[in-house]
Amino acid sequence: MSLQEIFATRATRMKASEIRELLKLLDQPDIISFAGGIPDPDLFPKQIFQEAFNAALSGPLATHGLQYSSSEGHKPLRVWIAGQMQKIGIPATPDNILITSGSQQALDYLGKLFLSPGDTVLVGWPTYLGALGAFNAYEPRYDKLDPLSNRSAADYTAEAEAAGGKAKFAYLSVDFANPTGATVSRAARERVIDLADEMDIAVIEDAAYQSLRFDGEVIPPILALEAARKGGDIEACRTIYCGSFSKTLSPGLRVGWVCAAMPVINQLVLMKQAADLHSATLNQIAIADVAEHHFDSHVEVIRAAYRGRRDAMLNALEEHMPDGVSWTKPEGGMFIWVTLPETLDGANLLAESLKTERVAFVPGHAFFADGSGRNTLRLSYATSDEAKIAEGIKRLGNLITRALAA
Amino acid sequence: MSLQEIFATRATRMKASEIRELLKLLDQPDIISFAGGIPDPDLFPKQIFQEAFNAALSGPLATHGLQYSSSEGHKPLRVWIAGQMQKIGIPATPDNILITSGSQQALDYLGKLFLSPGDTVLVGWPTYLGALGAFNAYEPRYDKLDPLSNRSAADYTAEAEAAGGKAKFAYLSVDFANPTGATVSRAARERVIDLADEMDIAVIEDAAYQSLRFDGEVIPPILALEAARKGGDIEACRTIYCGSFSKTLSPGLRVGWVCAAMPVINQLVLMKQAADLHSATLNQIAIADVAEHHFDSHVEVIRAAYRGRRDAMLNALEEHMPDGVSWTKPEGGMFIWVTLPETLDGANLLAESLKTERVAFVPGHAFFADGSGRNTLRLSYATSDEAKIAEGIKRLGNLITRALAA
Repeated sequence: MSLQEIFATRATRMKASEIRELLKLLDQPDIISFAGGIPDPDLFPKQIFQEAFNAALSGPLATHGLQYSSSEGHKPLRVWIAGQMQKIGIPATPDNILITSGSQQALDYLGKLFLSPGDTVLVGWPTYLGALGAFNAYEPRYDKLDPLSNRSAADYTAEAEAAGGKAKFAYLSVDFANPTGATVSRAARERVIDLADEMDIAVIEDAAYQSLRFDGEVIPPILALEAARKGGDIEACRTIYCGSFSKTLSPGLRVGWVCAAMPVINQLVLMKQAADLHSATLNQIAIADVAEHHFDSHVEVIRAAYRGRRDAMLNALEEHMPDGVSWTKPEGGMFIWVTLPETLDGANLLAESLKTERVAFVPGHAFFADGSGRNTLRLSYATSDEAKIAEGIKRLGNLITRALAA
Repeated sequence: MSLQEIFATRATRMKASEIRELLKLLDQPDIISFAGGIPDPDLFPKQIFQEAFNAALSGPLATHGLQYSSSEGHKPLRVWIAGQMQKIGIPATPDNILITSGSQQALDYLGKLFLSPGDTVLVGWPTYLGALGAFNAYEPRYDKLDPLSNRSAADYTAEAEAAGGKAKFAYLSVDFANPTGATVSRAARERVIDLADEMDIAVIEDAAYQSLRFDGEVIPPILALEAARKGGDIEACRTIYCGSFSKTLSPGLRVGWVCAAMPVINQLVLMKQAADLHSATLNQIAIADVAEHHFDSHVEVIRAAYRGRRDAMLNALEEHMPDGVSWTKPEGGMFIWVTLPETLDGANLLAESLKTERVAFVPGHAFFADGSGRNTLRLSYATSDEAKIAEGIKRLGNLITRALAA
């Protein structure tokens, strides 16, 4: 989700003219931008993909790559993904995998599958804006999912019914989530399974950043925890895992997947057949080739680069932020989430920052289903080098210090 | 739409066990199949695509091809498509073009944009099964669009309202349509515009086969006819044109487009952003390259091949079909539509044909929104050589002759 896209959402309350002015500033080369939600393109394995597409179009699969194919996706890719799922504790077979055009498409299809207008979706506050965008097409309401609070399943259910619909699923981005960089604890994951079992609803586990862990203890996916509770039987599970190659290999090829019990996959396959027939065949063949031969080594390159940038940003925040400002310490991914004193407004700060400090970021309130969180910012360290990160955070610290003194 | 997919739809009334038996037969190599709805893969420009992907991944656009990009699509491709639109009388600019993942996705998005449960869609009887599949997700009812009958706009509107919804759009596949091979006449196209203007509804023009005309007089697209009436102003038009590279360059790359007035495009862009962000960037770059340098020459190769196969099938039908059987004479595309005497049932005939004649086709009733048309068959000549076509039609003629005598 780029800053342009954030500006374009209804969640922001800026006027079109204000947005146009800010966008003009963003095009200027002296801006240090922590605003992007995109991976560093310098880390794309271009040559590896060049070889993979070349092989795909000259080898025995060339015709297959250019022809219509099955809605569930390219079998060798589903086999590889099922193997990856098994490595992280999810007892999946290839029949539990549907290939989607990015995990964004999975979120859209799951909204379409489950939601009627007025139904309730349980989400974190804040949460991934693209998930809200996908679900909004099906006109749900949102309730704040807070698994470690003392709200019971009956409480959530009663609120959904009082609002005239049903609670249909909980949505969580589990590891180093966009926008906060935070990871859902093991206790919270376990509690989400309890709640979902009691409420008889689905759990949508967005694992887009899962492979990008730099340090800290690996926490099993919710689907793995649920399968472990249920005799290792994925068919007994209500959790629907959404994965993506966008943060590891390439977002532009639009390849992601859903891993779930077969009845869910079968419904989604019918939906995909009606909606776009299948994801691009050639891309699936190329991704399967690259994943099989280069996934682990390439992900290690990305992790090392992003780890260095995260450290640079955390160090600079420590050095330059005034008292009263706090931030997350992500164990992976691309984002740090900054909380300012209540008196400050992220959108106002951005306008000022672009003019005087030439630093861009995303005001945090755009990520709240209820538009709250005005004193928060999302910073991405993924696309800047360490020197620029140090300089940009220094300027931002100066600005916030001045704003607090004003 | 493959035979497997046809079998899988609810429109057929075959039992699962019967379907499994038939599918087993289809896998056998001695079957002559006229059942496919797919282009001949031997005609794909494999080497040209290999060069295009190679160039895309080694040139200045390599990073762009692997990165997130804009929801409306790759600008140079939109520029090329707008130029093609202009050549066929549609006064489009690149801002009137949205790139979709095949035109199937355009049909899904248009259903999502326009339809509420109980609304009415006007369609031909029969019509493209994939369109019904896409629209069905939004729970419309269907009314039979018969533009040259004496049903008035008020008649259509009254029926839609009596059914508890509103008429939202007419959907037509205009040239050598799947499944009939028939072309909508100029008079019918003009009348559809009259009706849509009077009813204040949209027209969805599916032009998937438009480039594959072998002979006969070119009829301008509905959108071109409407623009000509309305001062050459596409912004005054209610027709939404859906195009595709699936039948000309490659279906497996999943690249199609919508051409329409900008307010429609803008709505669809927002919808696409929420649903899958954008279609695969690299594929759009490669398609733009191939289209720019090879479109006309490659389409001429496909036309020549399919023209010869159509002629072979028409000649064989003339020679081998008994009295009482009639068929369409398509001026392009991939399909011939056969109408049998009322006493025969296409699904029964298929079961018998696979067992005794080893010839496959698609029973026509699957293409009717109301499940009628049981005495019809769809034959594709796209993927068989001329000798196989002659032999297959001879066998089919024998079978039908026997069935009529029984």
